[in-house]
Parts: sequence; C-alpha cells; structure tokens
Amino acid sequence: MFGAGDVRVENVPDPRIVEPTDAIVRTVRACVCGSDLHPYHSMASDPAGRPMGHELIGVVEEVGSAVTTLQPGDFVIAPFAYQDNTCVFCRDGVQTSCLHGGFYGSTEVGGLQAELARIPQADGSLVVVPGVDESSELLPSLLTLSDVYLTGYHAAHMGRVSAGTTVTVIGDGAVGLSAVLASRQLGAERIILMGRHTSRTDLGIEWGATDVVAERGEEGVSKVLELTGGEGSHVVLEAVGHLPAYEQAYGIVRPGGVISRVGVPQYEEAPIGFGSLFGKNVTLTGGPAPVRAYLEPAIRQVLAGEIDPGRVFDRTIGIDEIASGYAAMDAREALKVMVAFR
Amino acid sequence: MFGAGDVRVENVPDPRIVEPTDAIVRTVRACVCGSDLHPYHSMASDPAGRPMGHELIGVVEEVGSAVTTLQPGDFVIAPFAYQDNTCVFCRDGVQTSCLHGGFYGSTEVGGLQAELARIPQADGSLVVVPGVDESSELLPSLLTLSDVYLTGYHAAHMGRVSAGTTVTVIGDGAVGLSAVLASRQLGAERIILMGRHTSRTDLGIEWGATDVVAERGEEGVSKVLELTGGEGSHVVLEAVGHLPAYEQAYGIVRPGGVISRVGVPQYEEAPIGFGSLFGKNVTLTGGPAPVRAYLEPAIRQVLAGEIDPGRVFDRTIGIDEIASGYAAMDAREALKVMVAFR
Repeated sequence: MFGAGDVRVENVPDPRIVEPTDAIVRTVRACVCGSDLHPYHSMASDPAGRPMGHELIGVVEEVGSAVTTLQPGDFVIAPFAYQDNTCVFCRDGVQTSCLHGGFYGSTEVGGLQAELARIPQADGSLVVVPGVDESSELLPSLLTLSDVYLTGYHAAHMGRVSAGTTVTVIGDGAVGLSAVLASRQLGAERIILMGRHTSRTDLGIEWGATDVVAERGEEGVSKVLELTGGEGSHVVLEAVGHLPAYEQAYGIVRPGGVISRVGVPQYEEAPIGFGSLFGKNVTLTGGPAPVRAYLEPAIRQVLAGEIDPGRVFDRTIGIDEIASGYAAMDAREALKVMVAFR
Repeated sequence: MFGAGDVRVENVPDPRIVEPTDAIVRTVRACVCGSDLHPYHSMASDPAGRPMGHELIGVVEEVGSAVTTLQPGDFVIAPFAYQDNTCVFCRDGVQTSCLHGGFYGSTEVGGLQAELARIPQADGSLVVVPGVDESSELLPSLLTLSDVYLTGYHAAHMGRVSAGTTVTVIGDGAVGLSAVLASRQLGAERIILMGRHTSRTDLGIEWGATDVVAERGEEGVSKVLELTGGEGSHVVLEAVGHLPAYEQAYGIVRPGGVISRVGVPQYEEAPIGFGSLFGKNVTLTGGPAPVRAYLEPAIRQVLAGEIDPGRVFDRTIGIDEIASGYAAMDAREALKVMVAFR
C-alpha cells in the first residue's frame, strides 16, 4: 500500500531464513482484513510502500535450524501476530503481547498478502493442520482461524458470554458475524446484531442472531433498549473500531455489563467517566485477539464440521487482482475477499 | 455545602416519613468521604446549599407502613446509595443502579451528615447489625461498611484479585488503604501501594502492602515496572479519581491485566485506544460500589474481629465541627474524619 486507496502488486526478493527460529511458508490462501481498510482510508502517501496482509494458510517450504515442531510440507495456519508462545505473557494467554512477538507488515517482517512469507518464531507462530491439503473444501474456514473468526471469538470470550447472556454485536462485517457465531458457540441466549446490510445480517441470522437492528446512533440505542425491556444488553461486542460504535456500545450495555472491543480503535480518547462507563459499573475489555490461544480447539471444530466460519468469504481473487479486492471490500460489495495462490 | 470550601451546619426541619417504604434513622456515627472533597474543591457557589454526607450507622426511629424487616430501636448500617434490593439490577449485584434507588444529598433526599435521616427503600437500604449498640468499640469499623471499606473491596472484587495476583493500589487515602486490606482478604500475593504519606502507607503495610512506591507519574510507573521485573501488575486498583492516577494505571498494568476504578472520575474522556488499553488487552472495570451486595459477610467479619477497617478514622469530631473536618481532610491532616452524635 502506497497511500490511501493505492494498493499495488510489486515483485520483491523472495524471503529468506534470517533467524534460526524462522520458517518460510508458501501461501495457499490469504485474505483482506477489515483492519486493512483503516490505512486504505487514511494512510499518508509513502513512495516506499507498506507490505500488507496478516492472514495466511499455507505449506512450510523451509525451516530454520532452531525450529523443532515443523517440517517442509506441513500444512499450517499462521495467526495474525507472531509469537514464541513460551514467554510469560504467552503463557498468560496474551500472545499478542509476546516479548519476542510482533505484527506482520513492517519492512523487516513482510506482509502475508504474498506468495511466500517469512514467519518469525515459527514454532510459536505456525500450527499444523493434520490431514489437510490444498484441495480441501475447508480452506476458507481454516483461513478464518488466522484472524477473523478467532477475533470474533476473542470478543465473546473476553465479554464472558455464557448461557443465558444477552449479547449485542455492533457491526455486520466479517468480525461482527464471527462474533455472532462465537457467541452462539458459548451459549448466548439472545444475540442482537446491529447492521444494515441484509445479505450480511442474513448470514448472522443463520449463525444465531435472534434479532437484527438496522438503526444506528441514538435510534439504534433506543431500539436495543426496547428489545431488552429497557434493561440493556449484558454484553456488547464492538466489531467496528470507530468512535460512534463505541458510543453506541455504552448506550446499550446493561448496568454491570461488559463492552468487549475487537475493532481496532481509530481513536485514542473516549468517554469513560461517570456518564458512560463508571456510573453503570460497566467493564470495558478486548484488544488484539491472541489467536494462538484459541487455535487448536477451533481447528478441531472446523475439521469436525461443527462451525463453518469460512462463509464470510464471498469473493475469491488472484493476487494480481488484490487492488480490486480492497476496492470491493471498501465499497461493501464484498464482505471478505480471499486471495487464492497458484 | 454552599460552594467550594464553604461547609456550614444548618438547622432544617426534621425529616418525616414521605413514602410508606421510608424509615427515619437517628445517626450515631457519620463521616466525611474522599468524594466529598471533589465538590469541596470545585462546587460553584449556591445560596441554596447542598445537603452533604452519605455514610451512616444509627438507630431506627420510625418506619413507614410498608417496611417489614426493621423496627424502631434496630441498630443499622446504611450503604451510601439507597436501593430496593429486589429489582433486576439489584439481583444482578449492581445495587447502585437500582431502578428505584438513588444517592443521598439531593433536596428530596437529604445528606447523612445530619442528626436524623430519611432513608428511602428502607427494607433494601438498611441492614441490621445484631447485638451492637452505641457503646460498641466496633462502631468505626461498622461505619466503614457504609462506603469506604466496601468501596475498596469492590475495587479488588471487580479486579478479580485472587491468590497469586500482584496488585498495585494507586492512592493512600482511606479507599486505597481499604483496597489493600480487601486485596489481602482475597489472597493477593503481592500488594504494591502507591502513596507518599508515610503515616498512611504504614497502615497499608500493616494491612498487607508488601511494597510502597512514593513516586508518581512516569517515575512511579518505572518503579512499579522495576518491582515487577518489567512485567507490570496483574491488577491495578485506582482509588483517586483524577486523570493522572488513571494514566499511571494503564502505564503499570500488565498485558491482559485489569484496571479497577473506584475513585469517582473527575474526567469524562480519557485514553482507551491502542496505546493505552486496547493494545495490551487491558480490562477496565469498576464504578460506584454496590455496598449492599457485600454487606452481610463484611458485618460478620467485623463482628468476628477478622478485619479492622475502622482504623482509617484518625479524627473524631462533633457535627458542629464539621467544617474543620472537611478542612483537615482536604489539608491531609486527617485521613478520614468520623462525626460522633450525642
């Protein structure tokens, strides 16, 4: 990405093993993330460009000398952040804060919207999917475990969604819909989905949403309060990242309830005083999903056919068409775009 | 209170039963709260004045016709908010959001720094202390159950303090010290108390603080990080309410940790984006303590001599001296001032 709206495919040297803990992975499927749209709107023009992408499934090509759990030919999922999965924060289940971890898309560590990728801390950052190859029908669902589904899951998990909970999900993007699916997995009794794109909210209904609210802002808040007998929602999952979505969240959360955010906040300051969070004893939680913490059980669920999160992909393109993929997601013509390689 | 720094004793008509659910209580002990100091600093001049005080132990004088659990002569504690203790939010344990509840100090419901008080929703708002009378040595500790100790307890409870937790308490006021005592009750392994008044932090050490940090701001943050091997504190209990204390809190909290606020925020907007809470997956919680939810077990602990939270009181005055009580707390000459009646 060279600036807002400016995505191009460039030929760059193949990545090489730099650290003995690295692996090189050949990408089978990658995708465009809702969070990629934030710089797509706002990035200042930069002739050097920024490598993009942080979601990938693929096949291990080569491993560094210190890598012990992987070998060439393994089919793997890469969580959207890399981590050693052994440090004190990883052991706490906060792998996105790994002492030796980081995020893709810097100049040292490239993006994953690419044919080949260098994966740092490969033992901690790649998880083998047994018995799957490039022809599997499960590729889309497995790809969502790199970020989008488990980001929705993180929202629900941090929101302490459980049996009997009323959950409101703000945002009908791929993360919001994933949050609906995850909330149902965690036993939510009622799931109110706030979104206005019926093709999306229809999938939300299939995944467990019991109510859809198309209104936003004050109107949306009133509607959710009405649906909950004036009490508000035990849990609000905020899957957008813009301030109005957060304001909606504290408007509809029930006293003593939880707001769980997984949309990357496009703001730093926001109301948290007596009139928003404090007075109602509202808990605010969330952050970048420690996907690695949730990956093994989710892989088992996908392989067993218990969940089908891959249905968020409604368009598949080749890497040469990546610019049109961003444009389609930005225009909301596509919910989530998958990039197929070879 | 008639404005910043302007507290006077006025003679007003005795309160009367207004609703059948009311009770009239004769005050035995009341006190000045740290939160009373906020208007003491900032209240605009108001010739009508504002009735002050929300902490009280006393004796029931009279009950309304609908009151079933109390009778004249009962020795009672009044939580700092009134509530029916039966509504949907009370049943959730968020009594400070009671549908029929509210706070003392309005013109309809007077303040509790007064000889007599009207207590609305008396069945839900007063708890009888068995076997205690006005001569009890436990009066100071029982009085703290009206607010200060259980506010500190609320901070620790919402922060999910448990065995093995490292807790940092910001503020060496009476609520901060109570949060230390409560954290120890909940099994915290290490308790770092941030405060610079040694007479206060000494009590904190007696109550379980393992470390005291006198530094504030950036320096204080560095010191706590140093004490925790660079990892930060699992839980931060913020018992001040000013923005710098909150900024300190997100500086020292560990990734995946919890900030629990019980100091009434003197700000509405504050940082909560990627650089403060979100990036580290920090949970922000807290609010006005639902004292009623915690009262019975705490009364048993005081009566059994297991806790002695009344030690926060280091000055006792008569109601005629109330102005000097505010001044002493404001000047930090007194930690917490008790008002004795009769």
